[in-house]
Amino acid sequence: MTEVAGAAAGAGKERTRRRREMTVARLARLAGVSAPTVSRVLNGHAGVALSTRQRVEEVIRQHGYRRPEGSERLAVLELVFHALDSPWALEIIRGVEQVARASSLAVVLTEMEGRLTPGKAWTEQVLTRRPTGVIAVFSELTVAQQSQLATRSIPLVVLDPTGEPLHETPSVGATNWTGGLAATRHLIELGHRRIAMLSGPTGWPCIRARLDGYRAAMDAAGLPVDPDLVRVSTLYVEGGLRDGAELLSLPDPPTAVVTANDLQAMGVYLAAHRAGLRIPQDLSVVGFDDLPFASWSVPPLTTVRQPLAQMGAAAAEMVIALGRGEKLRHNRVELATELVVRESTARVAR
Amino acid sequence: MTEVAGAAAGAGKERTRRRREMTVARLARLAGVSAPTVSRVLNGHAGVALSTRQRVEEVIRQHGYRRPEGSERLAVLELVFHALDSPWALEIIRGVEQVARASSLAVVLTEMEGRLTPGKAWTEQVLTRRPTGVIAVFSELTVAQQSQLATRSIPLVVLDPTGEPLHETPSVGATNWTGGLAATRHLIELGHRRIAMLSGPTGWPCIRARLDGYRAAMDAAGLPVDPDLVRVSTLYVEGGLRDGAELLSLPDPPTAVVTANDLQAMGVYLAAHRAGLRIPQDLSVVGFDDLPFASWSVPPLTTVRQPLAQMGAAAAEMVIALGRGEKLRHNRVELATELVVRESTARVAR
Repeated sequence: MTEVAGAAAGAGKERTRRRREMTVARLARLAGVSAPTVSRVLNGHAGVALSTRQRVEEVIRQHGYRRPEGSERLAVLELVFHALDSPWALEIIRGVEQVARASSLAVVLTEMEGRLTPGKAWTEQVLTRRPTGVIAVFSELTVAQQSQLATRSIPLVVLDPTGEPLHETPSVGATNWTGGLAATRHLIELGHRRIAMLSGPTGWPCIRARLDGYRAAMDAAGLPVDPDLVRVSTLYVEGGLRDGAELLSLPDPPTAVVTANDLQAMGVYLAAHRAGLRIPQDLSVVGFDDLPFASWSVPPLTTVRQPLAQMGAAAAEMVIALGRGEKLRHNRVELATELVVRESTARVAR
Repeated sequence: MTEVAGAAAGAGKERTRRRREMTVARLARLAGVSAPTVSRVLNGHAGVALSTRQRVEEVIRQHGYRRPEGSERLAVLELVFHALDSPWALEIIRGVEQVARASSLAVVLTEMEGRLTPGKAWTEQVLTRRPTGVIAVFSELTVAQQSQLATRSIPLVVLDPTGEPLHETPSVGATNWTGGLAATRHLIELGHRRIAMLSGPTGWPCIRARLDGYRAAMDAAGLPVDPDLVRVSTLYVEGGLRDGAELLSLPDPPTAVVTANDLQAMGVYLAAHRAGLRIPQDLSVVGFDDLPFASWSVPPLTTVRQPLAQMGAAAAEMVIALGRGEKLRHNRVELATELVVRESTARVAR
């Protein structure tokens, strides 16, 4: 167990003890239903009227319930992605898988096909499996889904949440603002003044923070931010290619581009290639993530490293600790980003 | 159900019926042990002496056994990788995940940390979970592990096996020989004569077949194969960089390189970049796989497309069909590879 997943002894244990005393029979009396009905709700089985289910869940929320130790809970962690469309996902999977394996847990993987909220079928399957815990990557569970997990003592940890961190849900992220700042400052130190920023969906806090880091570095250096040089793009190669090409065709184009992720940076590489510009002689580019291809792109990409595998590992440690009934020391963990200077950035030529 | 996973009605059903009649009690009598002992073996529990377990497994092999329908089998597919170190893995995961989701099955992912054979802990966990089926990617199960799965009616499908296809284990692959042939013929048609081949572990049939396809195309064109131009490398960027650099430093270097996979091709890109050579003006390069980065590398990579997601999907369909007690129409399926011509190949300059 790391310090991330430390247990605060006294209070947590006491609460656990009280919860264990809450039997199915007592819950049934409190909810005014039969014990088998409570069991059906706890086990995620169908055939319970919505209003009954909600009444039982409300009673569990008020009085707590914890399954007896060693009961039929399955030795798996659920890992939910909104999309498996980037090597980004593979890094996180590896981190989660390593920690899970060390705890003899298997990893159940689900992709939401790009949707941010899992569907009803997913919830029902998870409740039937009764996993040790759920890690949602870039996914948002509805309040009802969170409540369904909570009332069954299935802990949830969110990785790099897309919305405002929900106050109660533990989550893991990276220091995105600092990363955006370091990327931009690096270019300023190389003498660049016309520095563009390709952003992504600014409703996502992690993306917004990178943009704000860029602005902070520009402000600190007394450089104006030209609105023409700040673009909301997509987090894919296509976005970087399209918006990079637009930037490069401006009357007064940038000499450097900070991107919101490595895939976007590869799109800027392609745009520069098509415009006959050399990287870094004619254009400097900084990425974000440090996915494997960053080190073997031509030229190797200067980028802000996000420790994705460690983030996955930290989320897995947190959810396993919660599954053991421990209390987390920190409800929100942000791992440090780091600028990795390679060959895609150089002193400004003009 | 696709034609890949079609059921041959009569014989299969008959066998299934006979198997269903074999109860735990009858198995126990035949093995000379108690019924609870047979259950413990079937459920993968510890505490059964090795010799007893083997006796029970032998009886099951002889007489067959199939769990009653709707019993505690878990609605998951097990997906085992030797390593999760390439975007290659992500493509296969996506294919498996899509088919599994359509059948309301979850995917349990395991990585063997580069080992080709899963350990004992994995086997025990899988027997405890009792999945619908197991897909082993580039992994080899021992005869004992295969037997343990078979006696518990847990079907196994192998994806792109590293060893000789085991006669009885159903498997999915791609037409590797044809791919190597098409890649080399494309370069010959562009006027290349000094064509190098970077290979990989030649003990793996899929890699050996690509090399043989290269040789076949050279022979058909009446071109000699210069042993200096054929190298056994690794399937990673580092291998392509090291062996690509050696090829380019030869007194009479190649004008084109056929590689064993896209990662290796990216290593050759780096080697050419460091040697001051332009692709494709000075050197043509062909990859193998068509991973996402192939289309956005600079220049975009000409490569042999291997339909990895479809291969994963086909393996999932096969294992699901087997789990239903159906008989497969084909025990070995090879999906077609296809040459995708992009910008890394050009007419020879000299």
